[in-house]
Amino acid sequence: MNRVSVIYHSETGNTQKMAELICEGILAGGCEAKIMSVDDLDREYIKESKSVLFGSPTYYGTMSWKMKRLMDTFPVKLEGKLGAPFASAAWKGGGGYELTEIALISGMLIRGMMIYSGGVVTGMPPTHFGAVSAASPEGFDADRCIKLGRNIGVKVNELWPVHI
Amino acid sequence: MNRVSVIYHSETGNTQKMAELICEGILAGGCEAKIMSVDDLDREYIKESKSVLFGSPTYYGTMSWKMKRLMDTFPVKLEGKLGAPFASAAWKGGGGYELTEIALISGMLIRGMMIYSGGVVTGMPPTHFGAVSAASPEGFDADRCIKLGRNIGVKVNELWPVHI
Amino acid sequence: MNRVSVIYHSETGNTQKMAELICEGILAGGCEAKIMSVDDLDREYIKESKSVLFGSPTYYGTMSWKMKRLMDTFPVKLEGKLGAPFASAAWKGGGGYELTEIALISGMLIRGMMIYSGGVVTGMPPTHFGAVSAASPEGFDADRCIKLGRNIGVKVNELWPVHI
Amino acid sequence: MNRVSVIYHSETGNTQKMAELICEGILAGGCEAKIMSVDDLDREYIKESKSVLFGSPTYYGTMSWKMKRLMDTFPVKLEGKLGAPFASAAWKGGGGYELTEIALISGMLIRGMMIYSGGVVTGMPPTHFGAVSAASPEGFDADRCIKLGRNIGVKVNELWPVHI
Repeated sequence: MNRVSVIYHSETGNTQKMAELICEGILAGGCEAKIMSVDDLDREYIKESKSVLFGSPTYYGTMSWKMKRLMDTFPVKLEGKLGAPFASAAWKGGGGYELTEIALISGMLIRGMMIYSGGVVTGMPPTHFGAVSAASPEGFDADRCIKLGRNIGVKVNELWPVHI
Repeated sequence: MNRVSVIYHSETGNTQKMAELICEGILAGGCEAKIMSVDDLDREYIKESKSVLFGSPTYYGTMSWKMKRLMDTFPVKLEGKLGAPFASAAWKGGGGYELTEIALISGMLIRGMMIYSGGVVTGMPPTHFGAVSAASPEGFDADRCIKLGRNIGVKVNELWPVHI
Repeated sequence: MNRVSVIYHSETGNTQKMAELICEGILAGGCEAKIMSVDDLDREYIKESKSVLFGSPTYYGTMSWKMKRLMDTFPVKLEGKLGAPFASAAWKGGGGYELTEIALISGMLIRGMMIYSGGVVTGMPPTHFGAVSAASPEGFDADRCIKLGRNIGVKVNELWPVHI
Repeated sequence: MNRVSVIYHSETGNTQKMAELICEGILAGGCEAKIMSVDDLDREYIKESKSVLFGSPTYYGTMSWKMKRLMDTFPVKLEGKLGAPFASAAWKGGGGYELTEIALISGMLIRGMMIYSGGVVTGMPPTHFGAVSAASPEGFDADRCIKLGRNIGVKVNELWPVHI
């Protein structure tokens, strides 16, 4: 079974809850998944993962400094893996969670990853650049997390078919 | 009385309604204001304005091409004026309205404007980079429009005091 | 042989020259390629392409309105294709060509594409988010165009192996 | 005399050299200026400053985590002050220094600052969103630093005239 790592930083638990919902979606998409906090990486699992997602709360318009520190010093090669971002914010849009997503995407591209979200073409709800949530993911925001996970799971198995 | 121009592109009416709410806020902040569609600029009013705001719907992750065309060919000097962006989107965050704001800010800075939103320090609701709205501005989104207008009106009168 | 479409808008010829260099790289990477201006799309070729690249000059801090118009109205489904951006600007960095790249990436993600540049991990020169050029691509800027094309060509053949 | 604070993070000395050139420009523009590393802030000077500039190297596509940590925890109120960003990168454009500038601008707007660069309308060289430099600032990149400083110094004295 293909593996996916879901790495997050969370102070309030909102981004962690997003990570959990995304994992649920990845399983539904047909892959294995493991969530890890920035402080507790499973390097072996990441190495074996076909895809790695990064999620951060939004502080002052972009990712938190703890997530940035991880991006600046990431200890495992990510080259060729599929990536996607997710981000929470205290507010209903407008506070920078999209900019957090773009900053995560930028870092992942620089490290040689491919980025994929599914955008608006894989059915509802849309997952334009990844998944975002205003505070704790409920309703539409929760659905987007699950959908992003599912999109990633399905795409991973399409790119790297598992022969049984 | 100091003047402020509020320029928008709108297909569905959502961004136009944002412009109207912003004008309401500008008046409350103590300035005159005029809203104009991208197709119907009042150049004389813009010239005399101390501040110019630009608003666009979000198409495919950033401003509409009609608003971009206006930014690329804007016929009035904007140098030294105070600017702020506003943006609507079809979705509850995550679809690019923040990126629309940033693209508008970028264009305004290049044209020599000063950018101001008030951020999170002028009381509730916050107006991080400007004002955003999911579809038609209601409730919190409407409040942010009015607040942005008010922040701009107040700041204009602070920077360029009107002596009676 | 896998096909790649390279679509550009160019007024001065700089972005067109970038497109030509990128094609050179794609061929070196083992795929077929065709360049097309925004005004002259070969829809059949795009449909058959495994990858589509978009390139634009930078006007007022992001893509030109003619490229934006194309992004807003693109007539061919791009879902599942591999994408990458390229951008020229009048200046040596700082004028917005990176923001043009990010805006193109955003639009491609929303349309369901996967984004890949190779970043800094495929050898010199680096192609962080795609390829950029200050005015006409020469030296380092030309090398980045060729490298981006090569990275895309190699990745396309890796993802969709051609069996002879 | 109006005061301006120039705050930077620098590992290699490149961003520090930018800060020094910017100070030179601020003096030429008619204000006092003081440069400070992220590790050694002069809070009293910042409080008294009419303008505060932030500069960072570019790591993995946006500001360094040490600069982000400062933005997340900044100990002095910045409300109403004039701001501008500057950023270095290891490469000739394309590696993210514009994205560093935008991320700094985003944080400054959220904290209630006004942003100003002078863009392309204050004479050569242009300073689109602030100042950028490929590695150590030389030639054109050094000129942009000095010009940004001068633009800020002049604007500060225009907004807050000093009566002798």
